[in-house]
Amino acid sequence: MSPPTLLVLRADPPPRLGRLTGRVRVRYADEGSLAAELPSADVLLVWDFTSDAVRAAWPGAGPRPAWVHTPSAGVDRLLCPELVASDTVVTNARGIFEQPIAEYVAGLVLAMAKDLPGTLELQRERRWHHREGLPVAGTRAVVVGAGPIGRAVATTLRALGVRTAVVGRTARPRVHGAEELDLLLTRADWVVCAAPLTTSTRGMFDARRFGLMQPSARFVNVGRGQLVVEDDLVAAVTKRWIAGAALDVFAEEPLGEDSALWDVPGLIVSPHMSGDTVGWRDRLGAQFVDMFELWAAGRPLPNVVDKERGYVPVHD
Amino acid sequence: MSPPTLLVLRADPPPRLGRLTGRVRVRYADEGSLAAELPSADVLLVWDFTSDAVRAAWPGAGPRPAWVHTPSAGVDRLLCPELVASDTVVTNARGIFEQPIAEYVAGLVLAMAKDLPGTLELQRERRWHHREGLPVAGTRAVVVGAGPIGRAVATTLRALGVRTAVVGRTARPRVHGAEELDLLLTRADWVVCAAPLTTSTRGMFDARRFGLMQPSARFVNVGRGQLVVEDDLVAAVTKRWIAGAALDVFAEEPLGEDSALWDVPGLIVSPHMSGDTVGWRDRLGAQFVDMFELWAAGRPLPNVVDKERGYVPVHD
Repeated sequence: MSPPTLLVLRADPPPRLGRLTGRVRVRYADEGSLAAELPSADVLLVWDFTSDAVRAAWPGAGPRPAWVHTPSAGVDRLLCPELVASDTVVTNARGIFEQPIAEYVAGLVLAMAKDLPGTLELQRERRWHHREGLPVAGTRAVVVGAGPIGRAVATTLRALGVRTAVVGRTARPRVHGAEELDLLLTRADWVVCAAPLTTSTRGMFDARRFGLMQPSARFVNVGRGQLVVEDDLVAAVTKRWIAGAALDVFAEEPLGEDSALWDVPGLIVSPHMSGDTVGWRDRLGAQFVDMFELWAAGRPLPNVVDKERGYVPVHD
Repeated sequence: MSPPTLLVLRADPPPRLGRLTGRVRVRYADEGSLAAELPSADVLLVWDFTSDAVRAAWPGAGPRPAWVHTPSAGVDRLLCPELVASDTVVTNARGIFEQPIAEYVAGLVLAMAKDLPGTLELQRERRWHHREGLPVAGTRAVVVGAGPIGRAVATTLRALGVRTAVVGRTARPRVHGAEELDLLLTRADWVVCAAPLTTSTRGMFDARRFGLMQPSARFVNVGRGQLVVEDDLVAAVTKRWIAGAALDVFAEEPLGEDSALWDVPGLIVSPHMSGDTVGWRDRLGAQFVDMFELWAAGRPLPNVVDKERGYVPVHD
């Protein structure tokens, strides 16, 4: 029996496939050659997880590839109707990004509470200007997204004494349903978006929802840029509907040099890095290798995406 | 019996003495009039806790004031040999600053791990430049100072998964003795100084100790500026003996506009604000009023400073 064909949508540095060497036929594609290569691949590793090319290149009906893995948490860039309807299994990188993102969000919350951006600006100006910080323990957060990232964020915020509610699609033990979101927003000091991008979450943070928040509230997005109506957020921060925001994700990435988002006072812009800690690419590669071993042995894969819902469900 | 005389070393805004109104004779002094007023005061409230004037103005032997309260954690600015030798009771503001400082330190640790200063600098330049953060959970911290502030810092860092050792003057359960400090420094990712300023701690962070630290280590000082040999710290950061530092306290405050500390790459400078959250002055005033009631009733005061040691001992 010939070895399976692993097609890698190339990004630099390439994945370290380690102990798969010699046991798979590895082919590399870029966005241009992906469509031609896909029908002969058994497995697709979307190593360039920032690419939207899979949707356009998907071969439609047919048995191949049998498995698509993306080394990211979100799968929104992959899922096209034909892939959703197919028998192809889609998996994600659950387990890699949760703790880094939780720490990143906690860092943003503390930095905003203590006005670290203001401190750094004053330092540039060599100005000694004492200010009063905000306490963090005892404040309230709403984390939108009840997947493992949202839950990790909640755990870390709670460790800092923040009273944290998690909101998911449907109410479950320790998770509020989407119908409770608006009320929770009205009393939150911190609103953290860690939701998957689906047809029902796209644009969910719009002028109406920013209008529900307290003037002292701050908004953090570590999910996907398209969850937020960016013009509405800029208006909300500029008009002081809310006190500030931090975006790590954007509708278009990388953010263009001419974007209005770069210089909104009170808005922190970071380059989609919240989940990425030193060694992350190696961890993503090692996770894929482990999963490939399971697949090759015919055993069940972890991290299987519910393609209709657009994310990996958490089983409580 | 005439009401007791409360002398307040003035700072703006003045303390809200609330329910003491009419029950005490309140006099206000500035640094210039302090020496003349002190001998007739029963109680001195050093409301301007940034002043060094008490040492110079202290009347020497004599029964008055019977009690000196400083609305700060450190008492180093007060203690002169005559005050130490006197029967005067000295108290501090234990209980007000611990949680804010712990959060502030946690914010600095997370911000440095995730390179938030770099992110803000790139944002100013409208540059999208992805970087990898450092994980915080699983790293090691040494907190120097086993008082309530050091302990609160340790509790908060541990809540973030940081393996945290506390170092005090002498070894006790859960506290390392000073003789263990050097070894602990050699393996710490984070070194946090929250020690009282005493004759044995002054200048304790010098070139030798920065030289013990790992090149990846970062140093945070929320204690007193004089605990650090500032020139040695600048050299250590500049020469990359250590990876970075954050100072909230300085040998001279406010830091002069011409100080070399303002623009050392990798050094965050903030204006002695780590413990100060919105409402802190009111909390300090209310704490003093509560303590005054105890004193007037002849009951024991909390937060009594061991004047020989120079801090309020923690009784485990």
